[in-house]
Amino acid sequence: MSLTDTTKPVVRDEVITRGPIQGSRKIYVAGKLHKDIRVPMREIKLQSVKPQEAGETDTTDFAVTLYDTTGPYTDPEVTIDVQRGLEPVRLKWIMARGEVEELPNLTSEFGRQRLTDRSLDHVRFKNIRKPLRAKAGKCVTQMYHARQGIITPEMEYIAIRENQRRDTIDKELGRQHAGQAWGADIPGVITPEFVRDEVARGRAIIPCNINHPELEPMIIGRNFLIKINANIGNSAISSSIEEEVEKMVWATRWGSDTVMDLSTGPNIHETREWIIRNSPVPIGTVPIYQALEKVEGKIEELSWEVYRDTLIEQADQGVDYFTIHAGVLREYIPLTAKRLTGIISRGGSIHAKWCLIHQKENFAYQHWDEICEIMAAYDICFSIGDGLRPGSQADANDEAQFAELKTQGELTRRAWAHNVQVMNEGPGHVPLHMIQENMTKQLEWCDEAPFYTLGPLPTDIAPGYDHITSAIGAAMIGWYGCAMLCYVTPKEHLGLPDKNDVRQGVVAHKIAAHSADVAKGHPGAQYWDNLMSKARFDFRWEDQFNLSLDPDRAREFHDETLPQTEAKGAHFCSMCGPQFCSMMITRKLREMPTQ
Amino acid sequence: MSLTDTTKPVVRDEVITRGPIQGSRKIYVAGKLHKDIRVPMREIKLQSVKPQEAGETDTTDFAVTLYDTTGPYTDPEVTIDVQRGLEPVRLKWIMARGEVEELPNLTSEFGRQRLTDRSLDHVRFKNIRKPLRAKAGKCVTQMYHARQGIITPEMEYIAIRENQRRDTIDKELGRQHAGQAWGADIPGVITPEFVRDEVARGRAIIPCNINHPELEPMIIGRNFLIKINANIGNSAISSSIEEEVEKMVWATRWGSDTVMDLSTGPNIHETREWIIRNSPVPIGTVPIYQALEKVEGKIEELSWEVYRDTLIEQADQGVDYFTIHAGVLREYIPLTAKRLTGIISRGGSIHAKWCLIHQKENFAYQHWDEICEIMAAYDICFSIGDGLRPGSQADANDEAQFAELKTQGELTRRAWAHNVQVMNEGPGHVPLHMIQENMTKQLEWCDEAPFYTLGPLPTDIAPGYDHITSAIGAAMIGWYGCAMLCYVTPKEHLGLPDKNDVRQGVVAHKIAAHSADVAKGHPGAQYWDNLMSKARFDFRWEDQFNLSLDPDRAREFHDETLPQTEAKGAHFCSMCGPQFCSMMITRKLREMPTQ
Repeated sequence: MSLTDTTKPVVRDEVITRGPIQGSRKIYVAGKLHKDIRVPMREIKLQSVKPQEAGETDTTDFAVTLYDTTGPYTDPEVTIDVQRGLEPVRLKWIMARGEVEELPNLTSEFGRQRLTDRSLDHVRFKNIRKPLRAKAGKCVTQMYHARQGIITPEMEYIAIRENQRRDTIDKELGRQHAGQAWGADIPGVITPEFVRDEVARGRAIIPCNINHPELEPMIIGRNFLIKINANIGNSAISSSIEEEVEKMVWATRWGSDTVMDLSTGPNIHETREWIIRNSPVPIGTVPIYQALEKVEGKIEELSWEVYRDTLIEQADQGVDYFTIHAGVLREYIPLTAKRLTGIISRGGSIHAKWCLIHQKENFAYQHWDEICEIMAAYDICFSIGDGLRPGSQADANDEAQFAELKTQGELTRRAWAHNVQVMNEGPGHVPLHMIQENMTKQLEWCDEAPFYTLGPLPTDIAPGYDHITSAIGAAMIGWYGCAMLCYVTPKEHLGLPDKNDVRQGVVAHKIAAHSADVAKGHPGAQYWDNLMSKARFDFRWEDQFNLSLDPDRAREFHDETLPQTEAKGAHFCSMCGPQFCSMMITRKLREMPTQ
Repeated sequence: MSLTDTTKPVVRDEVITRGPIQGSRKIYVAGKLHKDIRVPMREIKLQSVKPQEAGETDTTDFAVTLYDTTGPYTDPEVTIDVQRGLEPVRLKWIMARGEVEELPNLTSEFGRQRLTDRSLDHVRFKNIRKPLRAKAGKCVTQMYHARQGIITPEMEYIAIRENQRRDTIDKELGRQHAGQAWGADIPGVITPEFVRDEVARGRAIIPCNINHPELEPMIIGRNFLIKINANIGNSAISSSIEEEVEKMVWATRWGSDTVMDLSTGPNIHETREWIIRNSPVPIGTVPIYQALEKVEGKIEELSWEVYRDTLIEQADQGVDYFTIHAGVLREYIPLTAKRLTGIISRGGSIHAKWCLIHQKENFAYQHWDEICEIMAAYDICFSIGDGLRPGSQADANDEAQFAELKTQGELTRRAWAHNVQVMNEGPGHVPLHMIQENMTKQLEWCDEAPFYTLGPLPTDIAPGYDHITSAIGAAMIGWYGCAMLCYVTPKEHLGLPDKNDVRQGVVAHKIAAHSADVAKGHPGAQYWDNLMSKARFDFRWEDQFNLSLDPDRAREFHDETLPQTEAKGAHFCSMCGPQFCSMMITRKLREMPTQ
């Protein structure tokens, strides 16, 4: 749909994917400290956990609860109107704290311009709320509250969410390996107090801008479930607002915990409003992209003023975390001169070029305290960018990269002094044997602030399959302690991902994250695997599909060779056929005497 | 095509994929010790290794040489007739050693039956050679020759092949990280003498049945490039002979170093003949599958006699390695009783059930020395099966698995006493943090015989994406020292893979193998990555496609958003668009003064 076609809505409701995930139903768990909390979860009712006779379909009440990132889109009971946005579930909590004020108008000059520009009427989201901001002298961040000893509703919500009704786990089937956690310290039960303590300590963050009350609170930290992020966003070359909103919903459907809108095309501001208003997960951005658009791509014309106005503009809209490349110091730029692939972070290269043009220090570094004040007034988290991350195996773990990482540590501590939540971004492209050094140094230099990496990719020879390459490195760094894994899609290095690429990328990185949770010995993590394995051994095909990260694809693949309904009760599949099924033989073998 | 349709050939030539890999051409490198050796390699001519101006297409003579598993199918100069099979390039070397005799007829009773059964005329491969076998008192194995200090043509061939013209590597672009090799000891240049020494020591194997003279010799060992295997084969439920031959060619096209034919459907014998006669890579099988077919699936009727005849039947045809589950001892079976998923190896479950029915020890273990004699007479390698490998995360690294691994070690040493080459099979399903223990114990207990693992998969929640899950575990165990990685396709646990699944599985595991080679610091491995990274930084799109593991897919993905020819010379892609391309900005930045 063309953006100039004013007869149709910008985002059509029917284009946005709705409906439950196959085999799952939405349930809600109530809070105890905060009674109005309703934490959404996915429940899968299993056919059985006992072996069944072939063809048997009797079901039991045995069910498993899984973490649910999908928001109301998968709840058939909820009415969703994309034109209005999701319900602002957090709004009353935010207001109840009495620290915010509703502003009469948007704070940023640019935001006000866009709002009154009649030529944008046809692309503008209609249901724009007045922005909230901390009252003068107030700090609204979760870190501030945590340090005050206050357990916010968000914290209790997260504790319930992370536990996933662990108390319902079957004792026998819940047995798991001890794991090797590399210093992570994950309690058997996540309490609201534990959440508070981790946030106070800076070891975990809750990205939740007060202007994004629609989100379902989640946490990013080494002692919690490993999270994944999906990047979406159009470029000047392709994609529409509608496509990007659907990509956001689609990414969360397959398990993305946060979404970054990296749009660089036209109407960035309006695209973002549509995405945030309809997003149940935190939204991250890289504000320098839009700042550069505002000066028509002329890096030399970038200034602190333009950048600052962009931060405020996006803060008003409700962006939950900002990638800011303040660690790209002028003095580090010569360290990249002998690299094979120079600076491959978009933001990093923009800042570096600005420094060289103006012969000045990075303005984001220079104005760090002022930025912290903005972040604190909205509770936006830092995702301190790694603008000098390596873009190739050759450049991994070099002087430039580690110089910046040290500065990321300095910036982290300074943000903490403002009670601002922080995570640090990491690489990138790193050979397998050099991955752990990244994690070890980040933990040490950044005082255990959560690490958030892009892959890393341990080889560069597979464009077209870089979601797989990335998942390999991501699983490893997740195991070593990385808190959030940014996905890579099959299109990485080749083009802008479409919906199917998003799904491939998300699932690949869910595999990485969960493998790492299991390896860390995360309490309850292996239960999911055990249930799948048991279903497999018992030939409960429906349960295998439903327990899969992607039930649609699992069923579709099975149906390709055995589409008949009877096959769903069969004690074999087309891989080996009935005679050569080891599981069938073993089941018979177990009925035999061993002596 | 139905097998009963006698009007068409069983395998039509036009169905088998031919032609060069996009951007590559076949070259041959001659031997020095053995002048008639011609080692095939893939050469990719690059546009340039210098940055180009946008739109520039001038080419230089800069070329890179890659390992080539594709056989003559990618050489347009070679005439291939699937009805006749490939040229028996090794035949003269085998005959020249003067140790073999041509037998007047097939050795196995079953093989003779099939050959004279008129009802099989329409599915039978026509160009069957008389089988070769060692003369009485002679040993024909590569290990025997190696121990005698003889460098066979196969060994020199392999030395040339493994080096990949490393002497042509650009010094500047060839710089690489030192790597962490976990005790592997890979020389800068692979000499024929080094190959001989590793084979003599048992640390590497050259699978090359004297009855498979069509194969291009390759080596499997920790101090060589990591190899991958693709499983093909029909089941009683689906697939034809033609499809399986094409899958074999297709698997090698994408990089598979060996292929296992795991057919369990009708006409196993004939299917195998078609595959071997047309295969440029070693073919492995699991003979117990066919033995079971011969007794109509009745495990109780299996016997040493049936099994022995099957070994000989397949030896005559030219199978290069046999998976034999001789380590599944009767006393280990009770160790699997409390497992979540029992015995999930097909072969393992068959042997275990036989042991229980007959209250006897595993016949393959009982007749091990006799089996070794057969293997020695044809130079077939053992791939000692891990019949008790775990089928789930829960069962990983348990008593049953490690009991069998110790027995694999005993069997390895006994085979070596017969000068028979050996590798050991490994798991399976193992959490990330428990993978290295598998490798460490295997090296210790099996005296550094090559390890050959299936994955392992570090989680079980992703049916439909198990090629990715497997690639994660495979990359890690490859890094730790595993010599060959068996692929898993997206269809694993759901159905029989088709051609596209084979391609996905192969590429995923090539990523794993190469990532591990880079991490080990394999000499020259990172060069490939460096060339890709440089091409990326220089916006040489054609070079990026051609250097990819799958050039067709890389180009296709790029074309989805930027199909125009001009875009192949553009200094950006659709991912970021022209304004936000970090590489473009960095290139401009390098032209600026830093002070």
